[in-house]
Amino acid sequence: MPPASFARLLVELERLPGIGPKSARRIAHHLLAVSAEESERLVSALQSARANLSFCSVCHAMTETDPCEICTDPARDEHLIAVVENPPDVEVLERTREFRGRYHVLGGALAPLRGIGPDDLSVGSLLERLRDAPVVTEVVIATNPNVEGEATALYLAKKLKERGVRVTRLAFGLPVGAALEYADDITLARSLAGRREI
Amino acid sequence: MPPASFARLLVELERLPGIGPKSARRIAHHLLAVSAEESERLVSALQSARANLSFCSVCHAMTETDPCEICTDPARDEHLIAVVENPPDVEVLERTREFRGRYHVLGGALAPLRGIGPDDLSVGSLLERLRDAPVVTEVVIATNPNVEGEATALYLAKKLKERGVRVTRLAFGLPVGAALEYADDITLARSLAGRREI
Repeated sequence: MPPASFARLLVELERLPGIGPKSARRIAHHLLAVSAEESERLVSALQSARANLSFCSVCHAMTETDPCEICTDPARDEHLIAVVENPPDVEVLERTREFRGRYHVLGGALAPLRGIGPDDLSVGSLLERLRDAPVVTEVVIATNPNVEGEATALYLAKKLKERGVRVTRLAFGLPVGAALEYADDITLARSLAGRREI
Repeated sequence: MPPASFARLLVELERLPGIGPKSARRIAHHLLAVSAEESERLVSALQSARANLSFCSVCHAMTETDPCEICTDPARDEHLIAVVENPPDVEVLERTREFRGRYHVLGGALAPLRGIGPDDLSVGSLLERLRDAPVVTEVVIATNPNVEGEATALYLAKKLKERGVRVTRLAFGLPVGAALEYADDITLARSLAGRREI
């Protein structure tokens, strides 16, 4: 058995998502081999991230200021809101540099079997935002392309249309760079149904 | 762009071996979402591992005491030493529960092209151990099954045989559970050459 303090480090590393016993061992040995400065930089980065980051009271995205930089940026299109499930989804959309509107983070997706209903998500605060800011004309639903994300999209579409706002959904289809041969049937069917004039 | 303290955490996580940008983001969000206790447990496990662990002055394995528990355990076979490249290799052999001797960690393998010669490894201290403890009758060379590990094994075998000690090498062959069809040519050739009576 490895020394106790090493075993303890392994246990904590294995709690991280995507880290199994072999990765944990590799990372642990790395963390013991690097300089004290490098190890402390990781510790202080973690502690300062936890101390400085919170969630925006308007859009619920991760932020160091409240409201967040996106909510307060006058250059962003105030007519457009993208609804996503979780904070990382905001970053992913931002990286495309294609979306210039604002965001709303639901905090998950509807999952009746796991007891997650609309009241567990920030649906109420989204409807309040639309009521308080009638300038919003389109909501892009960017929930995940799976069963729960789809159910959430349909639920939101119904709620939002009642309020007279245009509701859109991210397109489904072939991922760029993939081969037709390896596409799954459902994606290919959605890709056919969503075909566009060229 | 993500908030500055989040970006800093990503940079530090991406320094870890096997962690790319996507894993780093996933781990960072996890570390922000867990309780303060869980996050502090990771920090303190890392700090205490770094504070408590050092290398055994006899075998150079990772340890909390010096000499290490294996070097001082009277139940271990003092006639047998396994030579490995790095500290994690000790754990890997220990997990098999098949080796009851002691260890010697070289601290790497011979790599003339990268300027790593015998003086950069703990070869001298291995020869001293054999001189000081003539009770050792067999040295199992357990360096990696690659070019550098093999070169190191040949070099050590020569040095050790001069001292009249029996030198063995871990067997090469088919990995258990694999299919013959997928074995590479060199492994298959070594496996044929090392065939045994059944």
